[in-house]
Amino acid sequence: MRILLVGASGTLGGAVRSALAERGHEVIGVGRSGGDLVADVTDPEAVARLYAEAGPLDAVAVAAGHAVFRPLGELSTADYASTLHGKALSQIELVRQGARHVAPTGSFTLVSGILTDEPIRAGAAASAANGAIEAFVRAAAIELPPQRINVVSPTVFEESLPAYAPFFPGMEAVPVARAATAYVRSVEGAQTGQVYRVR
Amino acid sequence: MRILLVGASGTLGGAVRSALAERGHEVIGVGRSGGDLVADVTDPEAVARLYAEAGPLDAVAVAAGHAVFRPLGELSTADYASTLHGKALSQIELVRQGARHVAPTGSFTLVSGILTDEPIRAGAAASAANGAIEAFVRAAAIELPPQRINVVSPTVFEESLPAYAPFFPGMEAVPVARAATAYVRSVEGAQTGQVYRVR
Repeated sequence: MRILLVGASGTLGGAVRSALAERGHEVIGVGRSGGDLVADVTDPEAVARLYAEAGPLDAVAVAAGHAVFRPLGELSTADYASTLHGKALSQIELVRQGARHVAPTGSFTLVSGILTDEPIRAGAAASAANGAIEAFVRAAAIELPPQRINVVSPTVFEESLPAYAPFFPGMEAVPVARAATAYVRSVEGAQTGQVYRVR
Repeated sequence: MRILLVGASGTLGGAVRSALAERGHEVIGVGRSGGDLVADVTDPEAVARLYAEAGPLDAVAVAAGHAVFRPLGELSTADYASTLHGKALSQIELVRQGARHVAPTGSFTLVSGILTDEPIRAGAAASAANGAIEAFVRAAAIELPPQRINVVSPTVFEESLPAYAPFFPGMEAVPVARAATAYVRSVEGAQTGQVYRVR
């Protein structure tokens, strides 16, 4: 399949790219500042240009999202807005516009995270964005067929612990390769409306 | 208790006002165009004025939210943004600013809805907003103590069926008084971080 992978250069994106390439797929990596295609997907006009440049697609996978982490008492109005925009609305926009560009039997695979269900300190804005994405995926799945849509909701990655361990005390990490496997499941499988929790 | 009730004039708000008043609480009703206090809570500056006018509070309860309902293929970028703003960010802002105005042992009770879990046609934007609110409540609950926060997540009301029945085929409706009872539970109870599903 020909797959657009947004956020291809991050820890998760790199693992997803490898997993999809190993399965024989053609992966078009998208980054904010580099990659096969360059786009800031928080800008709807940039998303339009991205799809125009990308050509025919069998699937879209997202492995990126911007969220602000701050203690609840320090999160500003703008922090919540930018997190909902940077993680939820940006992914919704990729689906909204992408439905016209992806093959009729194609799929979308979005990303949320464990904070939907299991909050951590300083993560209230990220939790909200993740909750929005998961509920959106369940809803979009009933109107999108024959296209499919799922979301991968991982816990913290072992590879990210050097930076993020203090935020996840006592919470088990998973190898990022396990999350990448869930993307393969979403892209190649037949389910829709699923939240693949990688915990 | 002295309770600020946002959205006091709607079907749900009226029932919540009655239920809280019957329990002996002082209810200060807030509406966009009428009520004890008038405020458009989608505007953070209006929220600041609202809290300044309201004086000391023991609880804040929200029974209002604006969402756009349209088939998935017709929902625009602006529809998603206005729904996340009108139903999720507005409630988050009431909590964000309210934490400084509500008593240390006070509470917040927000509103989501069944679309978080059980989507309907034309409801993808509303689902996203509801999912954001429920995840935010779980997250805020671990940083807000001793203040508490819960969310009431009702299905469609029997009283709303004349207008909304076509959107909820075969889904059981509940009397709005049942949802109002959940507000009493949130305000007078001791739990926090709960999603009270009224189904």
